Amino acid sequence: MSKVRFKISMSLDGFVAGPGQSVANPLGIGGMRLHEWAFPLAVWRSMHGLEGGEANESTPVVEESLANIGATVMGRNMFGGHPGPWHPKTPWNGWWGANPPFHHPVFVLTHHARGPLGLEGGTTFTFVTEGIEAALEQARRAAGAMDVSLAGGAGVARQYLVAGLVEEMEINLVPTLLGSGERLFDGAGDDLRGLELVRTVAAAKVTHFRYARR
Amino acid sequence: MSKVRFKISMSLDGFVAGPGQSVANPLGIGGMRLHEWAFPLAVWRSMHGLEGGEANESTPVVEESLANIGATVMGRNMFGGHPGPWHPKTPWNGWWGANPPFHHPVFVLTHHARGPLGLEGGTTFTFVTEGIEAALEQARRAAGAMDVSLAGGAGVARQYLVAGLVEEMEINLVPTLLGSGERLFDGAGDDLRGLELVRTVAAAKVTHFRYARR
Repeated sequence: MSKVRFKISMSLDGFVAGPGQSVANPLGIGGMRLHEWAFPLAVWRSMHGLEGGEANESTPVVEESLANIGATVMGRNMFGGHPGPWHPKTPWNGWWGANPPFHHPVFVLTHHARGPLGLEGGTTFTFVTEGIEAALEQARRAAGAMDVSLAGGAGVARQYLVAGLVEEMEINLVPTLLGSGERLFDGAGDDLRGLELVRTVAAAKVTHFRYARR
Repeated sequence: MSKVRFKISMSLDGFVAGPGQSVANPLGIGGMRLHEWAFPLAVWRSMHGLEGGEANESTPVVEESLANIGATVMGRNMFGGHPGPWHPKTPWNGWWGANPPFHHPVFVLTHHARGPLGLEGGTTFTFVTEGIEAALEQARRAAGAMDVSLAGGAGVARQYLVAGLVEEMEINLVPTLLGSGERLFDGAGDDLRGLELVRTVAAAKVTHFRYARR
């Protein structure tokens, strides 16, 4: 059955982005340190068109996180471009160029209506102004039997989590401190909305915690 | 060589105690959930004079945390009793009765001078008003070749960590949310003062992260 999933990298002190996030530096100061564990992996390099790399305990976790995704939901900030209404003549078309790596329907949460955008390789962007439940309903329909990925940012993942709409989350816990920035769980309260830890995979530079409904 | 060590249980969202800490409820609301992983262990039950219990991946971690401790440093709140000056005639003598489980010298950080207190079984409490470095110096001398344990509370552990005086910390990460309370790393900034992850032990209800200087 179709599940709603997200994965996110988080520091030991709970931050998923450093301070000073901006269009130029979407991860914030120091935020790149949350992702360094992935860069040497062959599976990560291959996703980005690079050869070589290594395999370790994280490899199957990353492979699983990429598999069986039929649709993606993301926030407007992750889609990118300047805030506010879309430019009528030359609207921002995302970070990913003519052939984005999704290859399936993507639903972008925004306050500003815009017609759908179809790009190469099977990626379509649909702009949803009716909120998180409407976006998820459209994404579930598009995904069919496959899963829906919440691509982020963290605020979007947290909104779905708090609404009890997440079936699986993978926390990639990185053993470092960021000290400030954006916390995944700020305002999420003291329960995990039915999710519980179902698997722990420890690698040298990251520990993967999978939460799911039993 | 003698090391300064502490261990602490922390929620996935970074809290080491719940909200509403008080003398009656030192762990705060929900804080007991951070320690439930330990209760079924035979090694924990034996420490508290109980028989039976189980062994799992956490057992050697707990055993190691108890071994080779020659002295302990703790804060006044952990020692307990009412805040402010000691009652001159019937001062508080700690939570642990006539024969406390330390069996070695304990140094209590306090703003209120008091003479030493010797109890049964080799436990002595020395009250230190000159700050964390003075307390540590006395504890190191008392410990000799053995290690010094920072027993807490969290604020004391954080002060020593930020001062760069900790050689080893064991974070028992519990896969739950507390939502609010006291955070271990609040105000600790973005670096671990020379500590790095050296070992991860995953059990079903807790993951033990050991940090040390390489």
